[in-house]
Amino acid sequence: RREEMAKSTQLIDNEIFRAYATYTAIVLLKMMLMSLITAYFRITRKAFVNPEDTASFGKGESAKKYLRTDPDVERVRRGHLNDLENIVPFVGIGLLYALSGPELSTALLHFRIFTGARILHTFAYLIPLPQPGRGLSWAVGYSVTFSMAYKVLKTAWLL
Amino acid sequence: RREEMAKSTQLIDNEIFRAYATYTAIVLLKMMLMSLITAYFRITRKAFVNPEDTASFGKGESAKKYLRTDPDVERVRRGHLNDLENIVPFVGIGLLYALSGPELSTALLHFRIFTGARILHTFAYLIPLPQPGRGLSWAVGYSVTFSMAYKVLKTAWLL
Amino acid sequence: RREEMAKSTQLIDNEIFRAYATYTAIVLLKMMLMSLITAYFRITRKAFVNPEDTASFGKGESAKKYLRTDPDVERVRRGHLNDLENIVPFVGIGLLYALSGPELSTALLHFRIFTGARILHTFAYLIPLPQPGRGLSWAVGYSVTFSMAYKVLKTAWLL
Repeated sequence: RREEMAKSTQLIDNEIFRAYATYTAIVLLKMMLMSLITAYFRITRKAFVNPEDTASFGKGESAKKYLRTDPDVERVRRGHLNDLENIVPFVGIGLLYALSGPELSTALLHFRIFTGARILHTFAYLIPLPQPGRGLSWAVGYSVTFSMAYKVLKTAWLL
Repeated sequence: RREEMAKSTQLIDNEIFRAYATYTAIVLLKMMLMSLITAYFRITRKAFVNPEDTASFGKGESAKKYLRTDPDVERVRRGHLNDLENIVPFVGIGLLYALSGPELSTALLHFRIFTGARILHTFAYLIPLPQPGRGLSWAVGYSVTFSMAYKVLKTAWLL
Repeated sequence: RREEMAKSTQLIDNEIFRAYATYTAIVLLKMMLMSLITAYFRITRKAFVNPEDTASFGKGESAKKYLRTDPDVERVRRGHLNDLENIVPFVGIGLLYALSGPELSTALLHFRIFTGARILHTFAYLIPLPQPGRGLSWAVGYSVTFSMAYKVLKTAWLL
């Protein structure tokens, strides 16, 4: 049993894996924050999608008017979906990359730039900043993931 | 080659990793089930989104009337998207958590509560149950993932 | 430090894990490609959703007409969401499966069929092919993930 414990902490003792774990936790927490921001806008804008969510506002017609879409709510939801589309590949490819034996400094550079780019992307989407602010921050994160995928395929290639 | 095999089963021999594997497989299968429920409602409600999906109902106008949104279909799809938004962070952070050396009993508690909360969330969404049923089950799963992320960052922190 | 490096490349030295890494990188890159196809159709069809994205087309009413939905854009977005719904379970369950000690040939069979099915699914969605082309390619990928989940639960089961 003690030996098993040792095995289980093996990966987490590795610096590159620790860096991956840190940045992955940060970007996933950032993505989870989008749920809270959506809830905040739904409540303050009184814009809901499920009838059971408006029951506390009264019955019948008086509650029905809160079943509507709101531009601010939709904007946060688009940001959340964009996170899913980009953070899922980062988490999956990033794990393989961390295990493919990169230099620690190179790995840190990848993880830091991706995390910074996705935080900027969220601000660019929610403020919103004029383009190409959001487009560029998206492209930077995308390129980092692509670069990690290249390293993974170069190291692991077994079709 | 035999040595490689041994390496590959190393993690799966660890009890915490086995618990993680079990609950991750269960919640991902539960999420996959949403696709089948969506298909079931699309077919029984005759509510499709792609023109090629209605071709078996005839040609032209007679098929076009099945290109519509249905409240039950949309409800399942919202449940599915909510699963993606919450189960993806659980799978990613849960893996790091399982490798961060938690107590087996604590880890099991996290995995069991999350899995139970997400199953409840699905029932609350699809029946639907009156609020705050769905809201609470969502918040419980969210908090479990947050608690695991805290442990990961405390153990692995390397910025 | 040298010892840590050795540890970090342990998994990637394993043939089954290398196969998993290769096919996971490929399907995640394929999913990322959907973002570029969406952007391509948004620009060529001039169909945007964020007001700040149409600013280069002029101000006021002249730009507002580009804030619209386009059938081709929506089709790519549905394909992208379907990828998320199906590739996320593959990546999560596939990792556990690769660590559960399958035969290399069986594992390769699973990974290859899933990857082929998802590439076919994308072509079937975007061309579009008549049904049941898209439905069958979806079902094949779904079944492969289900088969891997069965192996994971049989090997790891610890509730």
